[in-house]
Amino acid sequence: MSVTSRIFDDPFNAFCKDSDAYLQGGEDGDLAGLTFAAKDVFDVVGHVNGAGNPDWKATHRPATSTAWVVQTLVDAGATMVGKTITDELTRGIFGENVHYGTPTNPRVPGRVPGGSSSGSAAAVAGGLVDFALGSDTGGSVRVPASFCGLYGLRPTHGRIPLDGILLQAPSYDTIGWFARDAETFARVGAALLSGGVTAQRPTRLVVAQDAFDLVEPSVAAVLRPALDIVAAIIGQVSSKVLAPVSLTEWSEHQQVLQSREAWESVKEWIDQVNPRLSFEVSDRYVLARSISDYQVAAAQVGRDSIVTRMNEVFADGVTVVCLPSTVSPAPLIGQKVSARHSLRLRNSALTSIAGNTGRPQISLPIIESEAMPVGLSLLGDRGSDAMLIALAQEIAAAQ
Amino acid sequence: MSVTSRIFDDPFNAFCKDSDAYLQGGEDGDLAGLTFAAKDVFDVVGHVNGAGNPDWKATHRPATSTAWVVQTLVDAGATMVGKTITDELTRGIFGENVHYGTPTNPRVPGRVPGGSSSGSAAAVAGGLVDFALGSDTGGSVRVPASFCGLYGLRPTHGRIPLDGILLQAPSYDTIGWFARDAETFARVGAALLSGGVTAQRPTRLVVAQDAFDLVEPSVAAVLRPALDIVAAIIGQVSSKVLAPVSLTEWSEHQQVLQSREAWESVKEWIDQVNPRLSFEVSDRYVLARSISDYQVAAAQVGRDSIVTRMNEVFADGVTVVCLPSTVSPAPLIGQKVSARHSLRLRNSALTSIAGNTGRPQISLPIIESEAMPVGLSLLGDRGSDAMLIALAQEIAAAQ
Repeated sequence: MSVTSRIFDDPFNAFCKDSDAYLQGGEDGDLAGLTFAAKDVFDVVGHVNGAGNPDWKATHRPATSTAWVVQTLVDAGATMVGKTITDELTRGIFGENVHYGTPTNPRVPGRVPGGSSSGSAAAVAGGLVDFALGSDTGGSVRVPASFCGLYGLRPTHGRIPLDGILLQAPSYDTIGWFARDAETFARVGAALLSGGVTAQRPTRLVVAQDAFDLVEPSVAAVLRPALDIVAAIIGQVSSKVLAPVSLTEWSEHQQVLQSREAWESVKEWIDQVNPRLSFEVSDRYVLARSISDYQVAAAQVGRDSIVTRMNEVFADGVTVVCLPSTVSPAPLIGQKVSARHSLRLRNSALTSIAGNTGRPQISLPIIESEAMPVGLSLLGDRGSDAMLIALAQEIAAAQ
Repeated sequence: MSVTSRIFDDPFNAFCKDSDAYLQGGEDGDLAGLTFAAKDVFDVVGHVNGAGNPDWKATHRPATSTAWVVQTLVDAGATMVGKTITDELTRGIFGENVHYGTPTNPRVPGRVPGGSSSGSAAAVAGGLVDFALGSDTGGSVRVPASFCGLYGLRPTHGRIPLDGILLQAPSYDTIGWFARDAETFARVGAALLSGGVTAQRPTRLVVAQDAFDLVEPSVAAVLRPALDIVAAIIGQVSSKVLAPVSLTEWSEHQQVLQSREAWESVKEWIDQVNPRLSFEVSDRYVLARSISDYQVAAAQVGRDSIVTRMNEVFADGVTVVCLPSTVSPAPLIGQKVSARHSLRLRNSALTSIAGNTGRPQISLPIIESEAMPVGLSLLGDRGSDAMLIALAQEIAAAQ
């Protein structure tokens, strides 16, 4: 029986049509009564991860256990109603899947939902579930959160166990989630982050000047009122250029390191299976294969310097950094590969700050009546996940 | 109505299941009563070329006329019963198509049929048609002819008009055909080569020493008796090293030039469509995209030197060159991408002699009872296509 027939229609092409994964939540937990979906990279016992590629699905076995994060949510009472479409092998931030189609952006039809956690974002934004799990290696939760007008968190790297999910680039991989409202978002966080570090309430807001310089003027205008609200809540505000050279240089280090790790994750499978992949995804793997050890070593030095720099920014223990989640609202569907490539690199300059330093970043939905949704992000110090979620609730209450 | 239901069963997965192209031949022509198939790159009015890739098929329109070569054969009385599977976008020499499956090698099940004219070779070798059309850019007729034990010709470049076929690399593209016996092969040749150059009967056989040095010992042993027959027919025999450095260097020039042309042929489509391609094929395009103008210029110089060298070999006007068609019999199906890549390069060292110089090459089927089929090739001077075919008949009669 398909998910669609068991649970609901799927007008947004959010769910995997070839999976009937379903886990009934208990009646008593803190999340009782909530429904959620999981990107098709989370193990559910007895089901095969598709990872957005039919040849991946055809050449892998059913999971023998359920991912920690999924089981934890089910144990807390939430019901998992299905697996959601992802960009192929999680390689993408726009959500266009050539095999399964592009999930609809329920807020802006005709434009991409963002990816790679595309179906999860679409399912939440379209009201099909209360929340959904995604993964974020290079922006795969933050970008669709921005494009679909959702709350979305990339947690501190290592904060949520990666057991039972498809790894892409382990030194960058994280698990995150989406919700439409800050309250639901926080309930999920309480279930997943229990016993975690509690960070001090920030009293200093650093506006990342070079990050705002990268966005389209219309985005800056849309984000301005929300930024003022955040500033008023935090108190002390300053503007700072984060990257000594450029955020683009920072993102290039992630491109190199993430690409190498991603290639290592799949190279044996590719050589064995010769899978059908979109040209765009193969292109990235072929380029990744050509990255030299020398380039990797140089990028690691670059990453170390980014870590040092961002440690300085957060050294006072009371700072939170504010930046745009994406350089633009959701782009149109069906752009040329080359155009999408260019736009991906621009967004990577924003997403790699958290990526390279393992810091948590929450994207807050900014929905203006005349504009498309776009996210405003708060970047906290390592371990400040729960604080960022609480701050998001406070900001929501003030809006 | 499908081809299968109209004409016959297709136990060899030779035909395109999604095409019902069919052209009834006349009753009076020289080819009356013969049936043939055409690789799915030949235009048939009202039908879309699939070219071995479903996204290609989905994004192209039906042909508005029929390819010259197809129409000429139909006008001569032959009936075209269907389109045959090809390697994706003709990029391959082994015949493994990830979208439509690998046509069976009727002579050696479990091993590849060769490609890219895989379905055409399988259809002929399996007895489903009397002959079949293929195209040969880097070996796509000669290699499947060798692996399936068929006669196959790569004609003089430009000898048969390329109107109405999918071009891959125009300075290398040719149209060829397969048949099981020399007689049928010659009848097709008479229809396609009428009014062409008639070359002098060769009196000097040059055995390409460096070409034979590349093949597996078992192949050399299988080819030896046939080579003796050819030598006896021609008369004067000598052995010669063709390439001053190596045939591998010669093939590298073709790799560069053919790759550049192939990328130019598809780059706009790829950018627009982001097609699903096998990783193997995308890999070749990504590498092709990175070829510099400098590399192209250098390879053109190399190609010019090959032309000069081979002009010397053929300067006496009575020479025919003998070489193995492939370095091995048909390889096993389902090898790793990397293994197939290595084997493709080795075969290219043989196929690029004709490719780089535009000369015709006919592959003769050598079928020993205890061995797998493998082809012995005769390489003639430009315009000697009909002579090569006549020579093939003479050799067949002597066996």
